[in-house]
Amino acid sequence: MTTITTTNDLAVGYDVPALPGMDEADIQTPCLVVDLDALERNIHTMGQFAKEMGVRHRVHGKMHKSVDIALLQESLGGSCGVCCQKVSEAEVFARGGIKDVFVSNQVRDPAKIDRLARMPKLGARTLCCVDDIDNVAELAAAVKKHNTEIECLVEIDCGAGRCGVKEGQPVVDIAIAIAATPGLKFAGIQAYQGAMQHMENFLERKEKIDIAAAMVARTIEMLKKEGLECDIVGGGGTGSYYFEGNSGVFNELQCGSYAFMDADYQRIHDKDGQKISEFENALFILTSVMSHTKADKAICDAGLKAQSVDSGLPYIFGRDDVQYIKCSDEHGVISDPTGALKINEKLKLVPGHCDPTCNVHDYYVGVRNGKVETLWPVSARGKAY
Amino acid sequence: MTTITTTNDLAVGYDVPALPGMDEADIQTPCLVVDLDALERNIHTMGQFAKEMGVRHRVHGKMHKSVDIALLQESLGGSCGVCCQKVSEAEVFARGGIKDVFVSNQVRDPAKIDRLARMPKLGARTLCCVDDIDNVAELAAAVKKHNTEIECLVEIDCGAGRCGVKEGQPVVDIAIAIAATPGLKFAGIQAYQGAMQHMENFLERKEKIDIAAAMVARTIEMLKKEGLECDIVGGGGTGSYYFEGNSGVFNELQCGSYAFMDADYQRIHDKDGQKISEFENALFILTSVMSHTKADKAICDAGLKAQSVDSGLPYIFGRDDVQYIKCSDEHGVISDPTGALKINEKLKLVPGHCDPTCNVHDYYVGVRNGKVETLWPVSARGKAY
Repeated sequence: MTTITTTNDLAVGYDVPALPGMDEADIQTPCLVVDLDALERNIHTMGQFAKEMGVRHRVHGKMHKSVDIALLQESLGGSCGVCCQKVSEAEVFARGGIKDVFVSNQVRDPAKIDRLARMPKLGARTLCCVDDIDNVAELAAAVKKHNTEIECLVEIDCGAGRCGVKEGQPVVDIAIAIAATPGLKFAGIQAYQGAMQHMENFLERKEKIDIAAAMVARTIEMLKKEGLECDIVGGGGTGSYYFEGNSGVFNELQCGSYAFMDADYQRIHDKDGQKISEFENALFILTSVMSHTKADKAICDAGLKAQSVDSGLPYIFGRDDVQYIKCSDEHGVISDPTGALKINEKLKLVPGHCDPTCNVHDYYVGVRNGKVETLWPVSARGKAY
Repeated sequence: MTTITTTNDLAVGYDVPALPGMDEADIQTPCLVVDLDALERNIHTMGQFAKEMGVRHRVHGKMHKSVDIALLQESLGGSCGVCCQKVSEAEVFARGGIKDVFVSNQVRDPAKIDRLARMPKLGARTLCCVDDIDNVAELAAAVKKHNTEIECLVEIDCGAGRCGVKEGQPVVDIAIAIAATPGLKFAGIQAYQGAMQHMENFLERKEKIDIAAAMVARTIEMLKKEGLECDIVGGGGTGSYYFEGNSGVFNELQCGSYAFMDADYQRIHDKDGQKISEFENALFILTSVMSHTKADKAICDAGLKAQSVDSGLPYIFGRDDVQYIKCSDEHGVISDPTGALKINEKLKLVPGHCDPTCNVHDYYVGVRNGKVETLWPVSARGKAY
């Protein structure tokens, strides 16, 4: 575990936002605070869902970028490993003790391929996606050089419009090439429908995954005719895992945001038209009021350097009398019509989008019962290479 | 200087995106690349402008968060010091050798005030803003404890609608309190009009600064009647510095973005209705094409983890045949109607907004003549406390 448990000579407010043992009230803002009880419940809940649906859960480490949380997801949620999006990120997880690491993305740069091919030497099963038959020879040369093995999933574009080939024959062609190549192993199909995760309407989301699952099912049949079995049929996110998990087609989920939740995921609805509620808010941007010269407006210390607003502004947790209405580089403007807020008052913001928000912070401050219990580095922060 | 000039055992693609001496072609993406020639010209140009207008230039370090670049702005651009927005950031600059550091923001948290009061012991003249008379006693207690001095500027809200008091008497009241307090020194007025910097129209921008300058001029007169002189009358940004600099009211500019430029600042117009052009693009997000399964769309490796899109998407430098059209967590979608792009082809993105984009990266790769010349840490990255 990379958890920081001793105080050493880290300066609170310079090196770190808090240290274990401190009162929650003394945390330096702005910073990311994790409600450890809520996080643990979310991890346990998703673990149970996967178990009940009879599928594996490979947690998406790109969301939190934390080795500590990935290990907690193994021990508490029964996750079978980690997926992430970059080779540099994968190395962090492998070095941190995760034994099964899937780069659920294309790896094309020669230097990155070389690093990926060395990753099994860190003790981790190493997997990546392929969506171009030319990539097979590139990967093969690197595993030969390092005498290692990489398992490859062919990525289908099942609606997200990013990476991935079309269903059917293009998948089969690449799969055959992988299977025929020494040092590579054909491991299955990657079919993540990223474009539907945030659609509010349950039935619209379901329709998109039904289409994706049908593509995947047809392709699996074609692969079988070539004698190729899929060890992994992967996909699913926090907005769709119940569809993939119950599809009879997918056998591995890849959810990330469920562990923390964010404002954007909380906008989507369940089958009864209610906002989804199986997961709790576990992640907050803790912020302080630092100016209040207008009667009805307070200024807090969390702006664009403390979050990403690509999916909308944060909301203020547990308060309906005040509202975060504007975000500039260093400040947030809070509407405070009754003048309720005081200087140095702390507020918990629920970020609009957790993934890129986590990526601007160096630490998670884990709190329980009003005390700082842990300080987890955002281990793979900035590992975008 | 904190510049990394030796290779040590840093791993390219894991610890760092590049090392000095490498070919530009071998830089690992995505990362921030700085065109050193363009940066130096921008710094020199702004230094000349300030000199000609007869005002000091205190560079805004919150933009680049780099000690190396701040020192270059001193040596090459004649800047008189640095301003920044957070105490933790200020400490980085003071520790890095900047001798005059202004936190152009309110400091209200007791722990932050304590750190600020210790900062003169790092050898730096230490300044901050005040917009609440209660803050005077808080600062006074801390400088007494540490036997140091803090210089205080009263912040006027001259149109940005964030921090700052109204012009006139509220400023005078706080200034008198500061001047009467042992350990504090009244240093002047802070009047940054942040809300107009990105207005496209030249005359609309001018009108906003004319209003601000009039507020400041009236307040200076009122302060004079109380025997209070303003050592610093500060404000101005990349979208307005020529107004403040020629106003006869301001004597210190605080520009940040001019050194790098970004897409948002390039949208504003000069007095002839032309896009402003006195500063060059010196900052780029270097990205690689890593998937191209659709004939007319390429996928690159720079998404939301490599930039902030709060002020719009990046544009692709030097290319009019391809366009960055969509940004997700890890990917950028590039419209490529003629299928011009190849796998592993590198592109330079001009970020929509430089400040929060710099804050997601750990390094600047400084390039000149096709070679990596320097690797500068983003020294105050994540220092938001």
